Amino acid sequence: MRILGIDPGSRATGYGILEKEGNRLRHIDNGAIFTRSGDEIPQRLETIHSHLCRIIDQYRPQAMAVEQIFLSKNALSALKLGHARGAAILAGVNVGLAVHEYTAMQVKSAVAGYGRADKRQVQEMVRILMNLPEIAQEDASDALAVAICHAHSCGLNNRLESALARQR
Amino acid sequence: MRILGIDPGSRATGYGILEKEGNRLRHIDNGAIFTRSGDEIPQRLETIHSHLCRIIDQYRPQAMAVEQIFLSKNALSALKLGHARGAAILAGVNVGLAVHEYTAMQVKSAVAGYGRADKRQVQEMVRILMNLPEIAQEDASDALAVAICHAHSCGLNNRLESALARQR
Repeated sequence: MRILGIDPGSRATGYGILEKEGNRLRHIDNGAIFTRSGDEIPQRLETIHSHLCRIIDQYRPQAMAVEQIFLSKNALSALKLGHARGAAILAGVNVGLAVHEYTAMQVKSAVAGYGRADKRQVQEMVRILMNLPEIAQEDASDALAVAICHAHSCGLNNRLESALARQR
Repeated sequence: MRILGIDPGSRATGYGILEKEGNRLRHIDNGAIFTRSGDEIPQRLETIHSHLCRIIDQYRPQAMAVEQIFLSKNALSALKLGHARGAAILAGVNVGLAVHEYTAMQVKSAVAGYGRADKRQVQEMVRILMNLPEIAQEDASDALAVAICHAHSCGLNNRLESALARQR
């Protein structure tokens, strides 16, 4: 299964694509979409959305994963993040992708085995798990982290379903 | 010129379409898109976006107007509003519509002639200006208000440009 992880942001939206083959994960691509600082909101959303649509079209993921946001510094930054997140999620929903949300703690637990791991530890674990020569750009790394989280989560769900099926 | 006004919200997104013919405004349609309370964010965004795409396809507006948001009760509600606003704006941007933003004070001034007019006064003025038999649903009324604001604003710009052209 191919998973697209997204770390949306008004200035930079990270994306990461990985392939889950049985219990193994394989890195496919990662990167960040930068919006132009002079652009108004509509243009920024168009940049994020159209770029993600092209990535989805190129890599044909079967699922999309995005971090769930609970808190933000302030209402204005939350509003800006919401715009970007809406544009990113729509790129997936519009082509029928299931969109899964995970909390920051779920992502950190899945990647670093510890829900309170620091940013650098998570980035290093993403690098190791994805077999990258160096740490990815930070938004791209966060996007890969949430994709890894989804891969683990659906792996667990599949094993749970198989175990339950065997019991029946 | 046909203008689509939008009042985005996570639960209800109002829309209003009017036709500006010279200095006259003519009401075309208004309504509200309600998302289902049990739905997750991706489904809500899909509802808002796809419904607006259909409305744009049906009425073919030449411009879109949306209220600019500066403050919100808290970060979480700002995030939710941002999602809905992003989905709504994208419906316009994706078909090449110019999206214009106006502050609440600009909208109130344009509709009621007074930037601190209260909600009920604005609704009643929208009803009168649009020649409606009764006050529209509140989100739809707010959407018509921002469309009226854009109609006035581009009317002013046109007159300014004509005046400047005559001076040359």
